[in-house]
Amino acid sequence: MTKPCIICVAITGSLPTKANNPAVPITVAEQVESTQEAFEAGATIAHCHVRNDDQTPSSDPERFARLLEGLRKHCPGLIVQFSTGGRSGAGHARGGMLSLRPDMASLSVGSNNFPTRVYENPPDLVDWLASEMLAHEVKPEIEAFDLSHIVQATRMAADGRLKSPLYVQFVMGVKNAMPADREIFDYYIQTLRRLAPDAEWCGAGIGANQIVLNEWSIAAGGHTRT
Amino acid sequence: MTKPCIICVAITGSLPTKANNPAVPITVAEQVESTQEAFEAGATIAHCHVRNDDQTPSSDPERFARLLEGLRKHCPGLIVQFSTGGRSGAGHARGGMLSLRPDMASLSVGSNNFPTRVYENPPDLVDWLASEMLAHEVKPEIEAFDLSHIVQATRMAADGRLKSPLYVQFVMGVKNAMPADREIFDYYIQTLRRLAPDAEWCGAGIGANQIVLNEWSIAAGGHTRT
Ligand SMILES: [Zn+2]
Ligand SMILES: [Zn+2]
Ligand SMILES: [Zn+2]
Ligand SMILES: [Zn+2]
Repeated sequence: MTKPCIICVAITGSLPTKANNPAVPITVAEQVESTQEAFEAGATIAHCHVRNDDQTPSSDPERFARLLEGLRKHCPGLIVQFSTGGRSGAGHARGGMLSLRPDMASLSVGSNNFPTRVYENPPDLVDWLASEMLAHEVKPEIEAFDLSHIVQATRMAADGRLKSPLYVQFVMGVKNAMPADREIFDYYIQTLRRLAPDAEWCGAGIGANQIVLNEWSIAAGGHTRT
Repeated sequence: MTKPCIICVAITGSLPTKANNPAVPITVAEQVESTQEAFEAGATIAHCHVRNDDQTPSSDPERFARLLEGLRKHCPGLIVQFSTGGRSGAGHARGGMLSLRPDMASLSVGSNNFPTRVYENPPDLVDWLASEMLAHEVKPEIEAFDLSHIVQATRMAADGRLKSPLYVQFVMGVKNAMPADREIFDYYIQTLRRLAPDAEWCGAGIGANQIVLNEWSIAAGGHTRT
């Protein structure tokens, strides 16, 4: 294959603590060090969450600013992607760090169930986050937890709420949402190609499905999340 | 075609008032009369919501009981389906009428965006509604607003939370959820056939998409909602 595969690394996530795994980088210094290792090992994008001192999820722009500064310094050329996911804050707090102008930010354009709750992304919040990304020239990574999220992203690109070409991540293996289903994975690719031929995509599997989605994505010519 | 097409009629819905359309039946007496006309015109299933005196949505079991009684009397053989949708109540109130043992009830097994809000069906509520339907021998109509909802229903059937064969309604034309997309409609049918070969399905289009989904569904050998 001549097209390079982009590896996106999620260093910290929003939930795991040192009690779950002592190797999880929590402080900004730990995150910068851990990201640098991944960057040197070949990661192109770093998907970033920040944490409070007690390890709980945070959306504090000041912490994001320090992380961005550390990554710019230690990983020149790394594409920094901030999470706007729902665990670290509510409402507009989820996008308060976009004015820092990271290279990318995650963006959910629909709602779905998670293992024990509803992952809520109300339409007005989605539109506001998208407009903030346009205003600050932040490239969104669309998090597609279901088929309609792919379709919705292509509609938002068509009416100017998102900029083309889209970059879409297929997230599979989420309990009560979409499992890692090979036929549906292929249909995701086919649908994105039909509705947004210039889009790029990336596959992400949750938990034990990570390696499965890595294999499927690389073989199908997409990008992937580790 | 030798297989009969089931026509499901939604007489009232949860929102439209006399101000929107003077013909909308609001009181139980009006609903019974209107349903009887549809029944005599060929409807097999009546999808029912009840309303308060001020026309706002209700989930009052007493009103559902009067409606059921009227329909049993005036439409013998009609399949009565109660809505457990989220507009008429919150939490367990959405299933408070299931002990009346209607023939069917609608059941959403996932969450998604609606035009201006999140349609919330948290996993524990979904499981509770499904268990109430099992306990009272009420046949669920699965409301599939997205692809993962179809998959989730087949998983719930596999582990005993739902009884097979499934009856699944594909809902299309919802702003911010799934549009009326012909290729996706075909893929819905294909996926349901793959994961639950004995399932029956029905197509429902919102607003101007109603007639579109009627045509697609009838031509593809499914059932449909008017
Ligand atoms: Zn994340
Ligand atoms: Zn990615
Ligand atoms: Zn309804
Ligand atoms: Zn129906």
